Amino acid sequence: MNKRGSLGIPFFCAMNERNIKLILTYDGTHYHGWQRQKNAVTLQQTVEDRLAVMLGHPVTLIASGRTDAGVHALAQVCHFMTRSRIPAGALKKGLNSLLRDDILIKDVQDVPLDFHARYHVKRKTYEYRILNQPQPDLFRRRFCWHIPVPLNVDAMAQCLSLLEGTHDFSSFRSSGSGNQNPVRTLYAAQVNGASGEDLTIILEADGFLRHMVRNMVGTVVQAGLNRLDVDGFEGIVAAKDRRMAGVKAPARGLFLIRVRY
Amino acid sequence: MNKRGSLGIPFFCAMNERNIKLILTYDGTHYHGWQRQKNAVTLQQTVEDRLAVMLGHPVTLIASGRTDAGVHALAQVCHFMTRSRIPAGALKKGLNSLLRDDILIKDVQDVPLDFHARYHVKRKTYEYRILNQPQPDLFRRRFCWHIPVPLNVDAMAQCLSLLEGTHDFSSFRSSGSGNQNPVRTLYAAQVNGASGEDLTIILEADGFLRHMVRNMVGTVVQAGLNRLDVDGFEGIVAAKDRRMAGVKAPARGLFLIRVRY
Repeated sequence: MNKRGSLGIPFFCAMNERNIKLILTYDGTHYHGWQRQKNAVTLQQTVEDRLAVMLGHPVTLIASGRTDAGVHALAQVCHFMTRSRIPAGALKKGLNSLLRDDILIKDVQDVPLDFHARYHVKRKTYEYRILNQPQPDLFRRRFCWHIPVPLNVDAMAQCLSLLEGTHDFSSFRSSGSGNQNPVRTLYAAQVNGASGEDLTIILEADGFLRHMVRNMVGTVVQAGLNRLDVDGFEGIVAAKDRRMAGVKAPARGLFLIRVRY
Repeated sequence: MNKRGSLGIPFFCAMNERNIKLILTYDGTHYHGWQRQKNAVTLQQTVEDRLAVMLGHPVTLIASGRTDAGVHALAQVCHFMTRSRIPAGALKKGLNSLLRDDILIKDVQDVPLDFHARYHVKRKTYEYRILNQPQPDLFRRRFCWHIPVPLNVDAMAQCLSLLEGTHDFSSFRSSGSGNQNPVRTLYAAQVNGASGEDLTIILEADGFLRHMVRNMVGTVVQAGLNRLDVDGFEGIVAAKDRRMAGVKAPARGLFLIRVRY
């Protein structure tokens, strides 16, 4: 015979482990990136702390990947385990009321116990926003890279197309990436928009090396400024040497926009 | 005989008074409005202090009008007097380098000595931005009023059209306006956009009473929410009584977009 808890729900059910997936949007301006750190406010810690208040126990959030300080997300995905019985909808509502207005929980759902937000990623998509006009736009200063000089968008598009496919992307990874395999498959690398307006660079891959998007964007912008031609860009890719590529684009233009499982 | 300064410019010229007009854009989020206050950071004080550093003397900036705490401007106009010989272009560059990134000096020019940024205003235009979709947009949270329920845009447009023309706008002025004449001429009052999307309300007048735009928008939104019909709105205008109108719309959606002289 099953013992029953005060709500009449059998204990074996009440105590069952749940795996819960969160989808969240954030403005990364005031955070030292996703990952919990000792002496800085991070996104992971901020959400974990609010979750712990609601659930009554400490929580470890596992995200699809880290984002750097100042990088934003339209749809970061993470998961955590709990034995709490709070329904997903109530968790979403409660979390949003506890969080500041620069993080928004878009979705909370129960997922199978074996779902893993990092290990099971199939594709990730980043968008990089460039404001290409003489005047800065102070209302978007935290959400784009302002480049006042007209960019050669055709050259940028040609360079980006060279990145599509499966390559060793060592030239675009920052030091501190460890011994990670530098081969990735880029399913899409394109630029939308016209010179002198808003430009967005979209990069979709099975995974990204450390600072890979920002290093790619920084180098593609060198081509857009006609400081590098398409052959030169091809040489940088082929060199597999980070010292060859251009400077890293600023964090503020970068958005994690989609994670596919 | 003229005495000459070290640059060989006659003193009578060097000492001539200049009247300088500034056009500035600002994100008002972190300021307690335009007007200098004793214990709060304001836009006027911030720009005056930087100007004083450059000019070597205290400056009084006179704006086209105050903006409230949290209100933004695409093109606020102000003027000040100086005997400095720093050219307008150098003032612009220097000021922009001294100011934080939430204020941008768009234009600096010498104007006739009798130009007055407040007294000579002919028309002012405000824009109020509403985000009318179920989900908030945290990247625009400081720059719009999020209304999740679909708005009746036709009803809003009808109410706004009733405001056009010359009327006693006492119903929309906040207390603290003093004995100011409440009659103003509204040249335009319209709403652009469709329900469930981005809406902008444009109001152009020869002048505005205290909180007039935000009180109008708050009341028009009541009609958009079908809590007030067009007859009811007409009654509020006719009552000339602030207690009849709806609540004041939040500051964050409001932009001063143009001042005409």
